[in-house]
Amino acid sequence: MEPFVFERIGHQALRERIVTAETAASWIEDGMTLGLSGFTRAGDAKAVPTALIERAKRQPLKVDVYTGASLGSDIDKMMAEAGIVRKRLPFQADAAMRRKINERELLFVDQHLSHTAELVRSGVLKPIDYAIVEAVSITEDGMIIPTTSVGNSSIFVEKARRVIVELNVAQPKALYGFHDIYEVGKQGERTPIPLTKVDDRIGTIGIPVDLEKIAGIVVTNQTDSPSTIVPPDAETAAIAKHLIEFLRREVAAGRLSERLAPIQAGIGSVANAVLYGLLDSEFCDLEVYSEVLQDAMFDLLDAGKVRFASGCSITLSENKMKQVYHSLEAYRGKLVLRPQEISNHPELIRRLGLISINTALEADIYGNVNSTHVRGTQMMNGIGGSGDFARHARLTIFVTKSSAKHGAISSIVPFVSHVDHTEHDVDVIITEHGYADLRGLAPVERAPLIIEHCAHPDYRPQLRDYFAEALKRGGHTPHVLEQALSWHIRYEQLGTMREETYQLQ
Amino acid sequence: MEPFVFERIGHQALRERIVTAETAASWIEDGMTLGLSGFTRAGDAKAVPTALIERAKRQPLKVDVYTGASLGSDIDKMMAEAGIVRKRLPFQADAAMRRKINERELLFVDQHLSHTAELVRSGVLKPIDYAIVEAVSITEDGMIIPTTSVGNSSIFVEKARRVIVELNVAQPKALYGFHDIYEVGKQGERTPIPLTKVDDRIGTIGIPVDLEKIAGIVVTNQTDSPSTIVPPDAETAAIAKHLIEFLRREVAAGRLSERLAPIQAGIGSVANAVLYGLLDSEFCDLEVYSEVLQDAMFDLLDAGKVRFASGCSITLSENKMKQVYHSLEAYRGKLVLRPQEISNHPELIRRLGLISINTALEADIYGNVNSTHVRGTQMMNGIGGSGDFARHARLTIFVTKSSAKHGAISSIVPFVSHVDHTEHDVDVIITEHGYADLRGLAPVERAPLIIEHCAHPDYRPQLRDYFAEALKRGGHTPHVLEQALSWHIRYEQLGTMREETYQLQ
Repeated sequence: MEPFVFERIGHQALRERIVTAETAASWIEDGMTLGLSGFTRAGDAKAVPTALIERAKRQPLKVDVYTGASLGSDIDKMMAEAGIVRKRLPFQADAAMRRKINERELLFVDQHLSHTAELVRSGVLKPIDYAIVEAVSITEDGMIIPTTSVGNSSIFVEKARRVIVELNVAQPKALYGFHDIYEVGKQGERTPIPLTKVDDRIGTIGIPVDLEKIAGIVVTNQTDSPSTIVPPDAETAAIAKHLIEFLRREVAAGRLSERLAPIQAGIGSVANAVLYGLLDSEFCDLEVYSEVLQDAMFDLLDAGKVRFASGCSITLSENKMKQVYHSLEAYRGKLVLRPQEISNHPELIRRLGLISINTALEADIYGNVNSTHVRGTQMMNGIGGSGDFARHARLTIFVTKSSAKHGAISSIVPFVSHVDHTEHDVDVIITEHGYADLRGLAPVERAPLIIEHCAHPDYRPQLRDYFAEALKRGGHTPHVLEQALSWHIRYEQLGTMREETYQLQ
Repeated sequence: MEPFVFERIGHQALRERIVTAETAASWIEDGMTLGLSGFTRAGDAKAVPTALIERAKRQPLKVDVYTGASLGSDIDKMMAEAGIVRKRLPFQADAAMRRKINERELLFVDQHLSHTAELVRSGVLKPIDYAIVEAVSITEDGMIIPTTSVGNSSIFVEKARRVIVELNVAQPKALYGFHDIYEVGKQGERTPIPLTKVDDRIGTIGIPVDLEKIAGIVVTNQTDSPSTIVPPDAETAAIAKHLIEFLRREVAAGRLSERLAPIQAGIGSVANAVLYGLLDSEFCDLEVYSEVLQDAMFDLLDAGKVRFASGCSITLSENKMKQVYHSLEAYRGKLVLRPQEISNHPELIRRLGLISINTALEADIYGNVNSTHVRGTQMMNGIGGSGDFARHARLTIFVTKSSAKHGAISSIVPFVSHVDHTEHDVDVIITEHGYADLRGLAPVERAPLIIEHCAHPDYRPQLRDYFAEALKRGGHTPHVLEQALSWHIRYEQLGTMREETYQLQ
């Protein structure tokens, strides 16, 4: 083995445990449960899952797969296509796996990202046979230093029967020192999580591991797969503009300072665009307490707009990856990666008073938000951390383009086809047309704001008609039950939610 | 003034501020916002609101009314009927007010009970002109000692422009020392809430108040209105039996000890019956961290089954009230009353790892729960604290009878007409027929359990048919969209959800 590999394994005896991915994969038996590192395409275990998929071609098997969040490197795609997954949780974002989930060829459990660790710790979920976690190094005192994400790796390592480490020499060794691993302990026996500021360090720089549990170390050399973020367009830029405008009004009202409050922004192109919007704003000295640190975050750090960013993973485009990982020292002391249980912990989200910005799939006229299910039935990705943040943030903002599929789908509907965030948890909805500030409003006060400020103008007459008819029917939250889901049914039948093409049958 | 009144006002100068309820009511102007004490019929301000209602007969006015939760003493009823409320939050439970809300004669904002204080503190809600809070006494150093509930009184007193104290001599002076008032402070500047055990005292015995803000003290002599809990019946007893059986299995699996974990139980007859079920169980040395302490809780304390109970209010039947308030000393050191922000705080619920038991109005075959809206439109009471607990508890249990209105309504439906608790937050559903343990299950695994273990046998064939048809349509969460709300529509049109009487049109 090359010296540059050995120098990443501080603990001498462990150097004897280096095995091939194929060997490690051969230990995995049908029916086992695996806990994989990986969060939003970052820091995922790559070689052993790939070898397992290969092996399954000769020896079919099914395993349960727990992760941090979505995997990169096409692992979810390949696992789904190979049919080796019986149950998958808590999140995924791959098109092939999504198809298999919706065809019910595999079981998917969509969980709040802060909840999975509790369920593993308390023994509610099936125990983990192998934790397979990516590392940049293993220290002399036997701590696993994660790579570009922490995810659920620390609880997987603690609770798994055995551990396989993927030592990835393509991941920058300089990530050493960027992590802060904190274990909350058993419910009922734990003390307050001592974090009170986004840059507090409360744990260890790596994942403590019982060395006896390390079954093998697989050396790999493969970068994370780059993110597929599309650059801001006119609509996402308009959303960002409305967000800035809303934040300005909060500053003017004395509820926020120009430093705002720690920001969380969900994954994806809309959230990324919104962060770019902050780059040109007057807000400064910002703090971030989020899950995923995307491209925009590093531009904000570079511009000095963001003072400090706490996250659970770093997910970058190809170019940004090159830039960031070649100048990591510039970010030392300015960012930290935490377990997702900590990045998404209700205790901390509420204490810090975050401004939380997440993407809605659709919202209804009363402010209920669907983040997961297309037409109420087809899983998109999962709720992710949005519920962890929405319920507890100081300001819970959902953003979405007002329409999709070239206008055939309205993102504002009479009645959402699935609820992930209830009316009690949604403060502000923003589309490219404007924002609706729903705080302190009764349902019938919310509907006109959402319709007139957020809905696509083409859909406003239809929404106004629905609301007017609903008002006649009465109730605190007026609805016309037999029409409530008619927009989704129309789309299913006719390919559009628009009424002019809708023929009554 | 009688000496026994003076001895309840430790601070001499304040004795000069005693006024009549009519005088205090005369200070309230049209358009003002009032913050009233009161939580689940306990410790409500009684005299000033009553005088205000009287005054409004001559001088019409509208006010916004914030409270802890529901009021007793018919205050919500009288306010609603007098038409003096413009906006009401965060919870109510009165039939007359409910009617006015659903007729939209007043605006109702249904909030998580732990959220209201944050919204008052941060200035998101309209500022409070008068806090009107009931007290058993005011100490020499100027602290207001609340009566049978704390609710939002402490934040109302802190943030209101002026304060009116209703000194209620019918409330036992011995309540002094039973309260623990803790102020969390501004978001972003606060430290961890230092509570790690249900019996920890972390605050002061009363509500600190700037004495200059006390506009007047009104002396009253009126007990709380008794609770209207109905005794356990065969169905609620069966629910309790299934709960005990479920808890036994958790103990057998090593996930709980015989001391279980701190219990929260929602208000109402079902929750009360469930607690009575614990009385005859083998579980002992129990702890309670809840909102409302009802009759059953005192029987559990008397029997030595419950070691300590933390709550936000004491709501008792007439007989129980007599017994408890004449022997309060027996409970000293065994119970504490906290602000609802603390009794319901996500940070503490998750840290303590509660077993949370709340009532559902209806649940769907995938585990989504409706706690608030009859047929999706008519407000019942409000979400109350159920969302604070459900998202964060160790075990989130929803209980309901499997049918209502003599079988015309099934509590298990294909698709709930309103979502308060999403599939991500519901662990176990219990009816008189059994329980469904949904933890770690995908939607299609949950449906058969809920249908076969929880639904009323009369409705099982209909539910099975729906689920079978939905499976044919496909998807991660299969639905037949055009039939999803048909059960509610059928009930609206034909007065029953049963299919045999349903004529296709």
